[in-house]
Amino acid sequence: RFAYVYDDPDAGDSSTYLEQRLQLDILGTTETDGGLTLGGKFRTRSYDDGDANTTTNNGMNAGQMFVSAGGLKVEVGNVDGALDNMSYIGLGTIGISNFVSPISSFAYSSTGTTVDTGVAAIYSMGAFGAHVSYDSNIDKTDAVLSFTTAGYTFSIGGSDYDDDSEWTKLAASVGGELAGVDFGLGYANNGDAGDFYTAYGQFGIAAGTTIGAYLMYGDQDDNTGVGADIKYDLGGGAALKAGVYNDDDGTFADAGVQFNF
Amino acid sequence: RFAYVYDDPDAGDSSTYLEQRLQLDILGTTETDGGLTLGGKFRTRSYDDGDANTTTNNGMNAGQMFVSAGGLKVEVGNVDGALDNMSYIGLGTIGISNFVSPISSFAYSSTGTTVDTGVAAIYSMGAFGAHVSYDSNIDKTDAVLSFTTAGYTFSIGGSDYDDDSEWTKLAASVGGELAGVDFGLGYANNGDAGDFYTAYGQFGIAAGTTIGAYLMYGDQDDNTGVGADIKYDLGGGAALKAGVYNDDDGTFADAGVQFNF
Amino acid sequence: RFAYVYDDPDAGDSSTYLEQRLQLDILGTTETDGGLTLGGKFRTRSYDDGDANTTTNNGMNAGQMFVSAGGLKVEVGNVDGALDNMSYIGLGTIGISNFVSPISSFAYSSTGTTVDTGVAAIYSMGAFGAHVSYDSNIDKTDAVLSFTTAGYTFSIGGSDYDDDSEWTKLAASVGGELAGVDFGLGYANNGDAGDFYTAYGQFGIAAGTTIGAYLMYGDQDDNTGVGADIKYDLGGGAALKAGVYNDDDGTFADAGVQFNF
Repeated sequence: RFAYVYDDPDAGDSSTYLEQRLQLDILGTTETDGGLTLGGKFRTRSYDDGDANTTTNNGMNAGQMFVSAGGLKVEVGNVDGALDNMSYIGLGTIGISNFVSPISSFAYSSTGTTVDTGVAAIYSMGAFGAHVSYDSNIDKTDAVLSFTTAGYTFSIGGSDYDDDSEWTKLAASVGGELAGVDFGLGYANNGDAGDFYTAYGQFGIAAGTTIGAYLMYGDQDDNTGVGADIKYDLGGGAALKAGVYNDDDGTFADAGVQFNF
Repeated sequence: RFAYVYDDPDAGDSSTYLEQRLQLDILGTTETDGGLTLGGKFRTRSYDDGDANTTTNNGMNAGQMFVSAGGLKVEVGNVDGALDNMSYIGLGTIGISNFVSPISSFAYSSTGTTVDTGVAAIYSMGAFGAHVSYDSNIDKTDAVLSFTTAGYTFSIGGSDYDDDSEWTKLAASVGGELAGVDFGLGYANNGDAGDFYTAYGQFGIAAGTTIGAYLMYGDQDDNTGVGADIKYDLGGGAALKAGVYNDDDGTFADAGVQFNF
Repeated sequence: RFAYVYDDPDAGDSSTYLEQRLQLDILGTTETDGGLTLGGKFRTRSYDDGDANTTTNNGMNAGQMFVSAGGLKVEVGNVDGALDNMSYIGLGTIGISNFVSPISSFAYSSTGTTVDTGVAAIYSMGAFGAHVSYDSNIDKTDAVLSFTTAGYTFSIGGSDYDDDSEWTKLAASVGGELAGVDFGLGYANNGDAGDFYTAYGQFGIAAGTTIGAYLMYGDQDDNTGVGADIKYDLGGGAALKAGVYNDDDGTFADAGVQFNF
């Protein structure tokens, strides 16, 4: 993906620069006679350094191995964090590159060549889902439960991390499709950083064209974020996107193309 | 490719060592419904460190993304430099590993994990070609125009970089095939480093065997370089090559095998 | 592969941790018209840092190139060491991750991004085999000869490295299958580190289940190592393994799964 970015922080000068990210996943799997799937995954990512006008690749990231059978998947190494993968709680990526989420916890690292070793279990059975992840270095466990009914998914998550910190302690969300609008509502308690509330909706306005509206409020700093974006599908996994988001940190806008291959 | 190298610099002792380079390109593309091709490219290269007797791999290099449609290709990230890709101006690779060119400008980086972010546009329509590249970090633009007629290609290129430097400011070349000889003639003005003139010819002497002769003159130091090489095709993309080149810096000779897979 | 490890060194506290290793080989080859095979190989490996609870990937390793024809293979770059690849002399991997060998010499580096440049030649003709490897940086040559008859393989190896060191100077081994038991017997003279003697046997006790017993004795410190492991084949290249090994350094035990894809 790449985009032209306008970044106007409240602190410091505004800047425009070329944003870009290119990543490659390498996935290998095998199946045992008993039906277990065993696999491993690497990722390498090349990306811009904000407005520094340089492009960097840290090399291959720390790997993830997994075992899956039926609805259960167990991950080892560079695992997917439970809170980080909670659905409908974050605003997602507004435009091409501006990812906004109230969640603050450990997550899969796309560029880290040394990461904390984790273990995660992801389970789904019918309408019910569970995701537990453990960081063995800082001894932190995240857990999320979800339930889907009538097209809506309700999730609740928490962490056992006891330090007085700004990491997410409790989170809840609901989302789905209502009258043609994909929506998400979320709440996160981030300890010393206070409570966060999120809401967004996305809907099609014409063939291949989708618009979205985004809101986030943090009570600690009485900080309200408002954003909007538009996406036009080019086919073949490619899309043009443009977006803008404004909060207490300033205004961030971009326009560009994203694609998969 | 790998080769046995004899390197006799005028300053310092002569040395012989094993030269080698192994690189892998990873290319992914997708096509939109409208016929645009979108893609990305990574490279990893392992290579010797001259006569230090070690082999190094810096990891995956900084990536390049591109969009192409018809005769136009736009690159973002680790892009191909216009002057660096000008045809017929350099002497190319004499033998296995001795690359000689009068051009001094930014180029695609095979081993750099952090590079200046660039944008490039490459256009071809019939006999006409154009390549413009921009380094967003140092604000330098290179441009080359070329025209092909009757089997000969004429190119002219320049750079807007104003600093008193030894980088190429102006370059011109002509090349093609004449009476069974592939030839190239080039001129480059490298500012404080003076003017450079190049000439080379390559022709087949037997089935699968090609010999080449190379000349370069730099007026600043009254430096004349003379070289020759021979190549024997092994089939399957592999070839034996041996070459020698002598200039004011000393003598460099090697012999070895190069191959693609 | 990944495993749960119990490590109780005589010096320092015991610890348990999650062991893991994920590696990917990238191999490319081409064939010349004359029947030579030319190729190159890269590896990237992600692994745990013992009980530090982190996972690291150094990126792509230094590459290896090779030419092979008939029973001869010549390697350049990050080559396979002759002594390091001698058969039946080491105890191999006891359990999932505890690799034990009396050999101390240079070897193929799975994670090194800068390695000594080597050259190696590996030759086999009928019952006879030879492997010579040379490290061009420290000027060290290893050589191993082997001969197979009646299902038993006899090997003898040595190194020309003259420094008073603890590297292997001389080694000999014999191994094969005897009455349903795969066995190996080895001897290595490691200079200042004294003589080492090894013995092991592995045999199937039920369909898909194999057990092994391991012994190593070093006369310098009168150090005896004793180990055992069990392996259960899951099919599809995957297996459960558990093992334990005790010597003067302490006790090391693990249990886990290994797989190929």
